[in-house]
Amino acid sequence: MSDRLDRQMAFLSEADRLKGVLRASRIGDGTRRENSAEHSWHLALYALILSEHAETEVDRDRVIRMLLIHDLVEIDAGDAPIFAGAPDPGLAEKEEAAAKRIFGLLPPDQAEEALALWLEFEAAESADARFAKSLDRFQPPNQNLANGGGTWVEYGVTHALFLEKVAPKINRAAPALWDWLAPRVAAFFAR
Amino acid sequence: MSDRLDRQMAFLSEADRLKGVLRASRIGDGTRRENSAEHSWHLALYALILSEHAETEVDRDRVIRMLLIHDLVEIDAGDAPIFAGAPDPGLAEKEEAAAKRIFGLLPPDQAEEALALWLEFEAAESADARFAKSLDRFQPPNQNLANGGGTWVEYGVTHALFLEKVAPKINRAAPALWDWLAPRVAAFFAR
Repeated sequence: MSDRLDRQMAFLSEADRLKGVLRASRIGDGTRRENSAEHSWHLALYALILSEHAETEVDRDRVIRMLLIHDLVEIDAGDAPIFAGAPDPGLAEKEEAAAKRIFGLLPPDQAEEALALWLEFEAAESADARFAKSLDRFQPPNQNLANGGGTWVEYGVTHALFLEKVAPKINRAAPALWDWLAPRVAAFFAR
Repeated sequence: MSDRLDRQMAFLSEADRLKGVLRASRIGDGTRRENSAEHSWHLALYALILSEHAETEVDRDRVIRMLLIHDLVEIDAGDAPIFAGAPDPGLAEKEEAAAKRIFGLLPPDQAEEALALWLEFEAAESADARFAKSLDRFQPPNQNLANGGGTWVEYGVTHALFLEKVAPKINRAAPALWDWLAPRVAAFFAR
């Protein structure tokens, strides 16, 4: 038992470092960048409140668990902002190594469960994972709208680029959320 | 539907402000104070990993949901650090008004559900709420141990005061967690 709890606490202590990983997006009032820990909390809250809008029925609590752990790999691999230049071709490999190291701190049964849940999120094939991914794409535009443009302004993103890169990823699993967001984004870019 | 989603989004947008509520506790590396949003994420992760240690069996997902929303009242009422002077006699009233305002942004069915869950947490009578409260007391000492004393040093807390004010609140619902923590805290105060 003690070794088991030692491992669980080593994982929870390591997880604390996610509070120091900064994202490109800013918090709602625009005063500072959002970190990946508070982002994960906000997304879990999105799932708690918005799961009825998933196109295919999802297991709300499972989506929440998935979102609580989805960004832990960033402790080793960093955040990869969608509009900040070319993607790192080695990122997937770095993230997988990070998942194995970080979830591997846990007792074997929990490590296996967490790794499987993270791999499912990354694969984005199950209904739960597709909806979780949609929320992960839906929250940042709402932050940008709240703080006057955020990463869109910072990276010179156009409406067309947003529609190409982000819209399909929200729309495929949560069309009702996309329908709500689309006119708001259009109004911003028409400002 | 649109009015329903408008209300859900108004709530999620308001919730973003919890990222700006600073706690007395610091993050693990000691570089800055922890905010209540990232604290809520960390606690939800504690529940995900540690629920097997609850003295009475709990519904893990329900504890997670409870912890995701437990601090939202601080947007209006602020954080009340346990060692920072006399408690505000009007705090419970302020927090209840905050809960009504903030959860009241949601559609009525979700507002009622969230308010009931928060009131259950505050009452600390059900097994889920007692365990959630224990985790809320168990995480800050671990943060203090990680960063060299944190709020204990800042507020001149003695081992005796900690044993009086914090230990019983961990021990009553999660004795295995208290047994793990107790010698580590003792070693810190004997340094």
